[in-house]
Amino acid sequence: MSTQTPDRRTIDPAAVEMLEAAAAAGIQTAWDRYKAQQPQCKFGNTGVCCRICIQGPCRIVPTKPGMDKGICGASVYTIVARNLVRYIAGGASAHSDHGREIAYTLLHTAEGHAPDYKITDKNKLLKVAKKVGIETEGRELNDIARSVAIKALEDFGKYDSEPCAWLTTNIDEERNRKFKHTTIAPTAIDRSIAQLLHQTHIGTDADPVNIIFGGLRAALADYTGMSLATDLTDILFGTPTPVVTEANLGVLDAEKVNIAVHGHNPLLSQMVVYAARELEGEAIAIGAKGINLVGICCTGNEVLMREGVPTATNFGSQELAIMTGVLDTMIMDVQCIAPAVKDLCNCFHTHLVSTSHISKVPGSIHIEFNEATAMEDAKKIVRHAIERYKKRKPELIKIPPYKKQVVGGFSFETMMDLFGKLNPDSPISVLTDAILAGEIKGVCGFAGCNNQKVVHDHASVEIAKELARNDVFLVSTGCAAGAFAKAGLLSAEGVEAYAGPGLKKFIKRLEEKSGLNAGLPLVFHMGSCVDNTRIANLWTAMAEELKITVPQLPFVASAPEAMSEKAISIGSWVISMGIPTHVGVLPPIEGSELVYGVATQIARDVFGGYFIFDTDPASAAKKLLDRLEKRAWKLKIHRQTAEKYDSDLARVYEG
Amino acid sequence: MSTQTPDRRTIDPAAVEMLEAAAAAGIQTAWDRYKAQQPQCKFGNTGVCCRICIQGPCRIVPTKPGMDKGICGASVYTIVARNLVRYIAGGASAHSDHGREIAYTLLHTAEGHAPDYKITDKNKLLKVAKKVGIETEGRELNDIARSVAIKALEDFGKYDSEPCAWLTTNIDEERNRKFKHTTIAPTAIDRSIAQLLHQTHIGTDADPVNIIFGGLRAALADYTGMSLATDLTDILFGTPTPVVTEANLGVLDAEKVNIAVHGHNPLLSQMVVYAARELEGEAIAIGAKGINLVGICCTGNEVLMREGVPTATNFGSQELAIMTGVLDTMIMDVQCIAPAVKDLCNCFHTHLVSTSHISKVPGSIHIEFNEATAMEDAKKIVRHAIERYKKRKPELIKIPPYKKQVVGGFSFETMMDLFGKLNPDSPISVLTDAILAGEIKGVCGFAGCNNQKVVHDHASVEIAKELARNDVFLVSTGCAAGAFAKAGLLSAEGVEAYAGPGLKKFIKRLEEKSGLNAGLPLVFHMGSCVDNTRIANLWTAMAEELKITVPQLPFVASAPEAMSEKAISIGSWVISMGIPTHVGVLPPIEGSELVYGVATQIARDVFGGYFIFDTDPASAAKKLLDRLEKRAWKLKIHRQTAEKYDSDLARVYEG
Repeated sequence: MSTQTPDRRTIDPAAVEMLEAAAAAGIQTAWDRYKAQQPQCKFGNTGVCCRICIQGPCRIVPTKPGMDKGICGASVYTIVARNLVRYIAGGASAHSDHGREIAYTLLHTAEGHAPDYKITDKNKLLKVAKKVGIETEGRELNDIARSVAIKALEDFGKYDSEPCAWLTTNIDEERNRKFKHTTIAPTAIDRSIAQLLHQTHIGTDADPVNIIFGGLRAALADYTGMSLATDLTDILFGTPTPVVTEANLGVLDAEKVNIAVHGHNPLLSQMVVYAARELEGEAIAIGAKGINLVGICCTGNEVLMREGVPTATNFGSQELAIMTGVLDTMIMDVQCIAPAVKDLCNCFHTHLVSTSHISKVPGSIHIEFNEATAMEDAKKIVRHAIERYKKRKPELIKIPPYKKQVVGGFSFETMMDLFGKLNPDSPISVLTDAILAGEIKGVCGFAGCNNQKVVHDHASVEIAKELARNDVFLVSTGCAAGAFAKAGLLSAEGVEAYAGPGLKKFIKRLEEKSGLNAGLPLVFHMGSCVDNTRIANLWTAMAEELKITVPQLPFVASAPEAMSEKAISIGSWVISMGIPTHVGVLPPIEGSELVYGVATQIARDVFGGYFIFDTDPASAAKKLLDRLEKRAWKLKIHRQTAEKYDSDLARVYEG
Repeated sequence: MSTQTPDRRTIDPAAVEMLEAAAAAGIQTAWDRYKAQQPQCKFGNTGVCCRICIQGPCRIVPTKPGMDKGICGASVYTIVARNLVRYIAGGASAHSDHGREIAYTLLHTAEGHAPDYKITDKNKLLKVAKKVGIETEGRELNDIARSVAIKALEDFGKYDSEPCAWLTTNIDEERNRKFKHTTIAPTAIDRSIAQLLHQTHIGTDADPVNIIFGGLRAALADYTGMSLATDLTDILFGTPTPVVTEANLGVLDAEKVNIAVHGHNPLLSQMVVYAARELEGEAIAIGAKGINLVGICCTGNEVLMREGVPTATNFGSQELAIMTGVLDTMIMDVQCIAPAVKDLCNCFHTHLVSTSHISKVPGSIHIEFNEATAMEDAKKIVRHAIERYKKRKPELIKIPPYKKQVVGGFSFETMMDLFGKLNPDSPISVLTDAILAGEIKGVCGFAGCNNQKVVHDHASVEIAKELARNDVFLVSTGCAAGAFAKAGLLSAEGVEAYAGPGLKKFIKRLEEKSGLNAGLPLVFHMGSCVDNTRIANLWTAMAEELKITVPQLPFVASAPEAMSEKAISIGSWVISMGIPTHVGVLPPIEGSELVYGVATQIARDVFGGYFIFDTDPASAAKKLLDRLEKRAWKLKIHRQTAEKYDSDLARVYEG
């Protein structure tokens, strides 16, 4: 089990040190607040508390007469299903609203109203334009970019009955048919979210299966928003290529002005990278040795992937970065910024700067970030940090001496380039051939957050190690990648320590041709949490290469520490795509056997993917391996049969 | 206080009888389930339970160290504000998604793909087209209708930065400026809902005031969706004109096939009216005396307003209609259909027929309703009811002998026609002059639901009586109108019994010229809950006539038994429009003094409207009267001063 105990709260050595220091100083952290909340409400924890109308809250006790249903008569399966899909609505909203901001910025860049942005990756622009059916021949780049941006914005709010472009053009024909057949292909992102709230309003849908299908429609809207966010961000800032950097609190530099970017949307964090480079001199002028930019959460992953900005912490340990006493400013945009960071800032000289009109924290400094004045705004924030540098309290400085090398930047395109070094004609077959040859067992994609319900970083790292030992090729995004980064699994160190013989051989073969001045990592970092669509591109390409459907592919996913609504929406589209998906935290669905059964079993019959809930890393790893082995075995049988069929057929014709 | 006790659960005599019968037969109703849920969770009831991520549930205990904030550090004001505005998101989604269906049907009608629908009210089409800026000169009606429908659909998903058309064109200039200034005018309905979910995602907005402003944006999106729903429904089915009908369970006819339409969306219920008329013969052929269509909740209000269909019950007593043993089929569309009705159907011969793809109940019969085959679908359902008639169990029949006359159909247009009989040049001045003359004190709009937390129908009726005695002109919608209907307040009986001298004089003056073959009612029924925009049209017209702002107008609102998310979203836009609004049930915001203070006080400073939470009908009535009297007094002072100023000015010029 991965449950916390007082002596076992995190496996991150920097966090262990900081938690001890926090305890000594009487500083409260998320770990303390988690403990104070125990025991947590069992009704809420199992999904059986309904607050959808204000006759409630209604709490279901199946065995108690009159309490087996809500006041309106809603059964426990209705209540659990409604609560579940409203999480999906929240997740889809967050991801897609982030994507919308990117689309607007691309539009305004193309129209000349966002002068600090430009079209950085022209090839990607052309590729994306072609993919979604936009004419490129003989058109100016800005004109094409404008059409692409409008096409993306239309995916949010169009009113025709065609499924969203960024869904249909990124998945294979079989999944398109499946989603059409099951009526879960969204025609507009926002509509599918609003309609899901309507469907779960009091007295609308009471049918749990119908509700879950509505939830899956919103989950595919989540995919759509994420997918366009990734595409358009690459167009604006460049598609990631390999970078070498570092991770953990040791990346903070006592002699430099330290600025952390925290949140998710790179529209700001990328500008801060440019501004920090430009204002290095101003930092030196006040006696610092320069500016040290670090990342937290996924906006950190964005600038890690594109600019090699080091990662300071992931979600779970975000407060601890402030406790180093050298973080001069923490800049936040949106999502997963624990309001507690402001309380920590109150104990240190660190300033929290909020930048988004929908994301503020009382008491923090708000410097509104506008795309029209992006560089100016970014500079204002960086200069603010330089000012804060002077306010440090030397007696409070404590940087835990831990950091690990990180080799990241593995966008789908970069993966293909890497594979292409071995087989330029068919890059993806380098991966699929290794599976067919039994050198590697399949692929596991890691995603997701940290969650105080389990030991920080523990399950992610343990499952990854176990899968690696068993020759599973590993990719990751989000705060799971943060855990791997800090544990050394995003570098060659991880390969040496944990890769099984087949996986090691495979990685080393890639490494020889990679042309990088660093070894390849055990886990390939594919980006922020919106970039899970890069992982989806990988499995779609693999299935197409093997001429099989995604549900037949030896590909699994794991969110060992799922926490946010986004994690639930991602998990839901991943299983819809046909991928068995482990979640290491029990979501609030245990209260309904029916809903639990749909998630873990019925989903498999309909979509091929399904959830595996398991809080024990060892057991979870075993289950994931089982699935990969079974799919790989079936795949080989299928291919042998097909080959035999082909040769039989050849014989008939030759007859 | 309006709190339930075992002997005091409803003031509706039919419901009293049926509850006794239910108790005798051991049949469980919402009243029993409410009792079984006591005591309800105090955390949920005061808004301090957070389930926005799955680290939770986090429950706040301000006085307990470590429990004063959530695990992420969210303060109680953040948690309460987030929970509150997510209710608004749910309400706005439900209303607007209903509006979207109407808009699609208008579009498809105009394009010839919905052959059973037609443009019934051509004048309203032209009026609406002009209002939202669509060219009408020299264009075919269908062509204009198509443009209007597209304009409405654009209000859901457009991506420009202009506020929604159905918001800006229905409110006065001052409110448009106010909403622009406070940045709460939505540019697209769905976007404002999705963005609000994003804003309230873990780690995004922690600022309660900013969160509430996001909530108000979604509330105005709710207004937008409701407003276009009303307009386009009038175009399709006609703008309501006065009708005389009846209400309460006594409207069920033991000798006829009884069909109840239940839910909200008239696209179906209106077709059922037509189908029932057409198939009357088939009912007679099997021995019934015909078909008796009755309404429950707001789809019932829709067909009451346009077709004079009687009302059987409102939300709170919906189960009891089935217990009469003569309801052959209950047809449901969307919203507020308690799943418990299916359990009741299991004890009687009644069939529950669901018709919407987002609104099903396990075990019920699903006959999908499509606009392309609307009449055919409606006939299928009516024929199903005729079949069920034969299955009645005579020993289970019990129709409580209660019904009251209802005079309804008071759309804004009909109100103006009525006033116009006294003053054709300026109809609205008939109402405003009566206020200025002190004959009536002002206007109160009633809306909202039933809620088991209070005595069924009690607060609505008591407050209305008290305001009537004090010469307040009363209008109503939704399930509040249902309460008035059953209590006789929607007929002249109510005027005789409860109108104060001024109000009585005012109504009788209208009545003399009304040309109706029935007396005018004490409370003017303006429609279903989406039709609250008709009430808003009334206050806007009054303010324009008086040349004052809405917040200066002697106009208040009351939702004595608010229950659904829709009630919360309606209440929120009503206060934003500048109207003091009483709510007779405490919404889950008591856990944060700050949020409570914003709702009840700060809102007044910013928008002029604010909430008055009071569960005691007498005290609530007094507060509403106080507000009206104060505003009326100020209005008169203002006018006297203005007149004096005018005459002073005249003297100056005259020298």
